[in-house]
Amino acid sequence: MKAIVKKERKFGAGLMEVDVPKIKDNEVLIKVKATSICGTDVHIYNWDEWSQSRVKPPYIFGHEFAGVVEEVGSNVTNVKIGDYVSAETHIVCGECSQCLSGDAHICKQTEIIGVDRDGCFAEYVALPAINLWKNDTAMPINVASIQEPFGNAVHTVLAQDVAGKSVAIIGCGPIGLMAIAVAQACGASSVLAFDLNDYRLRLAKEMGATSVVNSREENPLTVVDKLMHGNGVDVVCEMSGHPVAMNQGFKMVTNGGVVSILSLPVRPVEIDVTNDIVFKGITVQGITGRKMYKTWQQVSGLLKSGRVNLNPIITHHLKLEEFEKGFNLMIQGKCGKVVLHP
Amino acid sequence: MKAIVKKERKFGAGLMEVDVPKIKDNEVLIKVKATSICGTDVHIYNWDEWSQSRVKPPYIFGHEFAGVVEEVGSNVTNVKIGDYVSAETHIVCGECSQCLSGDAHICKQTEIIGVDRDGCFAEYVALPAINLWKNDTAMPINVASIQEPFGNAVHTVLAQDVAGKSVAIIGCGPIGLMAIAVAQACGASSVLAFDLNDYRLRLAKEMGATSVVNSREENPLTVVDKLMHGNGVDVVCEMSGHPVAMNQGFKMVTNGGVVSILSLPVRPVEIDVTNDIVFKGITVQGITGRKMYKTWQQVSGLLKSGRVNLNPIITHHLKLEEFEKGFNLMIQGKCGKVVLHP
Amino acid sequence: MKAIVKKERKFGAGLMEVDVPKIKDNEVLIKVKATSICGTDVHIYNWDEWSQSRVKPPYIFGHEFAGVVEEVGSNVTNVKIGDYVSAETHIVCGECSQCLSGDAHICKQTEIIGVDRDGCFAEYVALPAINLWKNDTAMPINVASIQEPFGNAVHTVLAQDVAGKSVAIIGCGPIGLMAIAVAQACGASSVLAFDLNDYRLRLAKEMGATSVVNSREENPLTVVDKLMHGNGVDVVCEMSGHPVAMNQGFKMVTNGGVVSILSLPVRPVEIDVTNDIVFKGITVQGITGRKMYKTWQQVSGLLKSGRVNLNPIITHHLKLEEFEKGFNLMIQGKCGKVVLHP
Amino acid sequence: MKAIVKKERKFGAGLMEVDVPKIKDNEVLIKVKATSICGTDVHIYNWDEWSQSRVKPPYIFGHEFAGVVEEVGSNVTNVKIGDYVSAETHIVCGECSQCLSGDAHICKQTEIIGVDRDGCFAEYVALPAINLWKNDTAMPINVASIQEPFGNAVHTVLAQDVAGKSVAIIGCGPIGLMAIAVAQACGASSVLAFDLNDYRLRLAKEMGATSVVNSREENPLTVVDKLMHGNGVDVVCEMSGHPVAMNQGFKMVTNGGVVSILSLPVRPVEIDVTNDIVFKGITVQGITGRKMYKTWQQVSGLLKSGRVNLNPIITHHLKLEEFEKGFNLMIQGKCGKVVLHP
Repeated sequence: MKAIVKKERKFGAGLMEVDVPKIKDNEVLIKVKATSICGTDVHIYNWDEWSQSRVKPPYIFGHEFAGVVEEVGSNVTNVKIGDYVSAETHIVCGECSQCLSGDAHICKQTEIIGVDRDGCFAEYVALPAINLWKNDTAMPINVASIQEPFGNAVHTVLAQDVAGKSVAIIGCGPIGLMAIAVAQACGASSVLAFDLNDYRLRLAKEMGATSVVNSREENPLTVVDKLMHGNGVDVVCEMSGHPVAMNQGFKMVTNGGVVSILSLPVRPVEIDVTNDIVFKGITVQGITGRKMYKTWQQVSGLLKSGRVNLNPIITHHLKLEEFEKGFNLMIQGKCGKVVLHP
Repeated sequence: MKAIVKKERKFGAGLMEVDVPKIKDNEVLIKVKATSICGTDVHIYNWDEWSQSRVKPPYIFGHEFAGVVEEVGSNVTNVKIGDYVSAETHIVCGECSQCLSGDAHICKQTEIIGVDRDGCFAEYVALPAINLWKNDTAMPINVASIQEPFGNAVHTVLAQDVAGKSVAIIGCGPIGLMAIAVAQACGASSVLAFDLNDYRLRLAKEMGATSVVNSREENPLTVVDKLMHGNGVDVVCEMSGHPVAMNQGFKMVTNGGVVSILSLPVRPVEIDVTNDIVFKGITVQGITGRKMYKTWQQVSGLLKSGRVNLNPIITHHLKLEEFEKGFNLMIQGKCGKVVLHP
Repeated sequence: MKAIVKKERKFGAGLMEVDVPKIKDNEVLIKVKATSICGTDVHIYNWDEWSQSRVKPPYIFGHEFAGVVEEVGSNVTNVKIGDYVSAETHIVCGECSQCLSGDAHICKQTEIIGVDRDGCFAEYVALPAINLWKNDTAMPINVASIQEPFGNAVHTVLAQDVAGKSVAIIGCGPIGLMAIAVAQACGASSVLAFDLNDYRLRLAKEMGATSVVNSREENPLTVVDKLMHGNGVDVVCEMSGHPVAMNQGFKMVTNGGVVSILSLPVRPVEIDVTNDIVFKGITVQGITGRKMYKTWQQVSGLLKSGRVNLNPIITHHLKLEEFEKGFNLMIQGKCGKVVLHP
Repeated sequence: MKAIVKKERKFGAGLMEVDVPKIKDNEVLIKVKATSICGTDVHIYNWDEWSQSRVKPPYIFGHEFAGVVEEVGSNVTNVKIGDYVSAETHIVCGECSQCLSGDAHICKQTEIIGVDRDGCFAEYVALPAINLWKNDTAMPINVASIQEPFGNAVHTVLAQDVAGKSVAIIGCGPIGLMAIAVAQACGASSVLAFDLNDYRLRLAKEMGATSVVNSREENPLTVVDKLMHGNGVDVVCEMSGHPVAMNQGFKMVTNGGVVSILSLPVRPVEIDVTNDIVFKGITVQGITGRKMYKTWQQVSGLLKSGRVNLNPIITHHLKLEEFEKGFNLMIQGKCGKVVLHP
């Protein structure tokens, strides 16, 4: 089969012909119909510091997809051949304290598809059956392929009440854009979007932001002060990873508010704990992955009902062979989600 | 001033000329611009068993309104003359265990405007300043006048997460209709509305119900079973007060779901505690009044943002003098909210 | 091996010599060291209405135990031969909406050990590996054998905050007695215990109840009124299953309080929904089983730390062969927990 | 009356004869029976950077006390002459978004007794009636006088579930010591106490810490690793304010755990957000003041029941005139709480 392989410990990747994976008793083989490029894949493609320390070429990367079950292992009962599926990308131990208390998404033994084992930038992918999520048959394949990052957005926004509240989304990459739509769909009274990139801010507006702010042109705190009449926003979703933006988030949140952080700043961040966390009595939440599988249930509920429309975010469709074009778009920030079709 | 007075211990009420109320140091006099009729007012008008045991004629009834501050007591700091206001109708003690722990809405010493003291079916009403809620100046007067019952709907629906979940609204009186809109606005994946009255079910559809069921014509449990593929609904908001409907609510909720009850059945209800509550591991919540004042903040957030549009519910506008026509409409169930204009 | 078998569809049971069970790939064989008698076992022994409708003799009953792993299936990774274990008795599907959202304890496909399949009143029992809980090696075998019902008590009491709050335990059977100890250990300001049986009320006192009330001799509501200065108790744990006692629970809870019901009344209960649930704004929670496996983590935490001492509850130790004596004690209510030793 | 006055903008304070304060209609005059020295008072005494920027000498400082109502204003209804009281020290606006949503303790207009207005290091103090808390008549005066800081400890520890969980207390000043007792009383499975001062660690042991660690002698992370078998602690209460200790807290908490911060680091702290907050999926909570008045209810519940014994912490009793001796003890860290008697 065809697969995009991270072949060497350097920039780039290559399209190769490899064997179709073999499955174990508890695994499933899926024919990939659509697979989208994540920021993580760009890190691996660019061979940055993080990927140098984490991934072990050669291997197939990619983890966001939708496809059809082609073959099931002998112990599999939850899916059958022909099922239309996507997958949770965290493969967890099932035995640790976190897994046993319903927090499998923060299992310390987590292995990630396309990072720690072969992924889905290929015609076929093999996965533990337990990680599969059956899609509604009416869901378009492109939307189905981006449910995993949409799950990040849902996990972040619904980590606190947003109904009737003001919500700030800092950083309008694809997950930030989806978070705007989730906040809008779930009753936020206002959704303020912040970014430095006007292309993304236009998409932010389209996804339902009630105010968009280019933080290079306007001081975010001044804008919030004006819009919120000096009281700050109720909820901040930090998706930029930039220390300055993150600190603006801490300063714009109202007393008693919540800052939910999905982003991954590359180095420690200096935070005014006394004034911005303690005196304000705020809650800061680290968000990673998706609740397994409560978030997936919420994802299905929001998409099937039409409460959230992800189409404006899917800006490019390419053949698997055109992956280099896709990665270039991602690197330039001139796109929403790029979907590849094997 | 003109006022609708419950004069005698029998059916009906009368329009009378009475003195404008005098205010105390901590009170405010409001010029009433719009006042809407609540089901409670109909009970008092009809002089049913409950009102016979509770209210003490002669007095002015009515409690839902919007108006303008005309005069303020010497200790009042939170509002000023000319402010556009509505009011929380529960006057609480501020000293009991519930008031001190943030649950003032269930203060055991609660006195209700228009029930236990003079209300707002009049040109003027006097109220403790602490009970006033400042309205956004752009809010239409009719919408502003029905925020109190809308608060009941918001309190009920947001008493649990609804984002991405299926919600059943049992009973489509005005508060049930508003609850449909709240569930829709706050991300419910589906909103099932149940009633016996087709007029109301038409309004239910207009307010955003994804399915409407006339429980006289279809078995609610069969419908839920089909729509939810045998898994039940996640959240039930019981607003009918009918024991059969309430028990249908307990049976249609999924294991681990929530039943929030705002209705007031007239006598004890037989409930299959073992099978419908314990084995299913559900949560049942009694809902009364509005959280003081968290619910009002949510109300403002949902209305100001346009997330919820209450206009379809306001079906009739009458002069204060035409109150009998308004009560007749309410008694016949041929209306949404009826707003009176003094 | 020796086993207590429910042989026929009538009162009683018999000790028999049967084959040691064979295990599947994902199962484990455990040598039973101690097994305790549950109220459910008494129902089966007595062959009451419920057991006639549920269990299918002949089969081995019993579900509470502690033992040592004797043999593991080929796919088992979480335990090994020689491990000291007890077990969660709910065998769940792992695929339904409840299992996927972290509420496996209310899976609709639940199969219970000793009820729906062979249990542990025997020298050996076979179980899915996933259901096993590794015990601290220092835990006495008798205590380890009653962790499953202790989990019910922990699940019920910790279903809401109890620190600094007043807690009523209605019904002082073994689980009620354990609930007293949990409430005491977790910071309850007072623990009121209600029962009709003075033997049990003496144990209640020993377990840490601050007040014990024989509801036949004193009116529970009068006692609560006096002790709580008219404000009611914060938390009620209903463990009696009696409709009168349950309604006393609803009446003694304070406005905004919580009633957690673990008991299983044999028929529907008439509840004053309007006055006891809605106007009071209380929360009613149905409790079944144990959170899988958060409750087991709490159980371990409370026992290992010595915060809860279960020894006073374990009143009788018998050989497996003496099971009839054990059942007689249980039927007469003249015991706490009875532990059998194969 | 006698009062300890911060007279000048420099180190120290002086005992002076001043007028007994006059009360307003909504205020109460209290005869102070016992008043304890807080770390904040030491800052003011020492005239550090913070106090230079905040307080305005000359004024009476001190805010922790117990006393008897001597006189009440004309509008006061919640207390009467002769009542035995202590007080919440945050005087709030009652009108802002936080006050209206039940979070008055983080009101942005908060004025603190003994900081922003005259305090209780005196024979008499005048306070708004709403801030008073009636003490149980059986409560010893010394214990009653330290309820305010005890409320900080209760607020911090009960900001998350601790029953059956492992809890680390970082920093064993008086509030840290009280936090140990709260965690112990509320069912923590283990309570690990960290400090650099052996005097305090001895008190920590006495208050119920299951392990005490001098962080200068042992690496806290190594100790946690060993005691928790590599899984970290469930809850960290940060009460040291030291950036190194705070970061140890972030590193010792388990995935999905909670870090509650009451301390006030003097400058911004560098935090590894990516690895210590996001990937671990933890919750960080800023804690300030006491929930008004839910925390006071918990305080009463824990003290009245005897669940928490504060006596070991009250190490010194002095006359008001001996305040300098008290401040010296505090500066040297050779004490628990120092109580002054006017």
